[in-house]
Amino acid sequence: MPQRLTAEERTQALADLSGWAPSPGRDAITKDFKFKDFSQAFGFISRVALAAEKLDHHPEWSNVYNRVIITLSTHECGGLSQLDLKLAHTIDTFGA
Amino acid sequence: MPQRLTAEERTQALADLSGWAPSPGRDAITKDFKFKDFSQAFGFISRVALAAEKLDHHPEWSNVYNRVIITLSTHECGGLSQLDLKLAHTIDTFGA
Repeated sequence: MPQRLTAEERTQALADLSGWAPSPGRDAITKDFKFKDFSQAFGFISRVALAAEKLDHHPEWSNVYNRVIITLSTHECGGLSQLDLKLAHTIDTFGA
Repeated sequence: MPQRLTAEERTQALADLSGWAPSPGRDAITKDFKFKDFSQAFGFISRVALAAEKLDHHPEWSNVYNRVIITLSTHECGGLSQLDLKLAHTIDTFGA
């Protein structure tokens, strides 16, 4: 069962990530990605989907044309866990 | 340039579609799809993405695990057009 990060762990985690910010009103993190067009955005979406399925940890996300907004949080512990950080770091290797 | 549907056309269009409802506060339509799991949901998402790119008309959509919420509207005319109906009918052939 994943554990919620402590306040200290969360602060450190956000310092280690680039472009991820605390989600308003939730113990979660969000990042907004912008691409050239839908094709580029969907290439990224596909890579994130494969990584999420492999990790068995899935994002909350939305897409409008070239924009993808991803929010990460862990349902099982009602907040941010190491699983979210792992997925965030993987997502960031796919770039924008 | 796509034209906004008239009120009459919109009413008829919604009667012809199943499960699509007017989006609150917008000239758009929305449908909520539920799948067995993320893998099934993402299969559907992929098919919609290909259809949207082919039609050069893209949805606003979000996904959380096995749920996909799709909103259709046409940016160029600031409301619902025939393009949205075409995409909605295509999406419905992919089932849920």
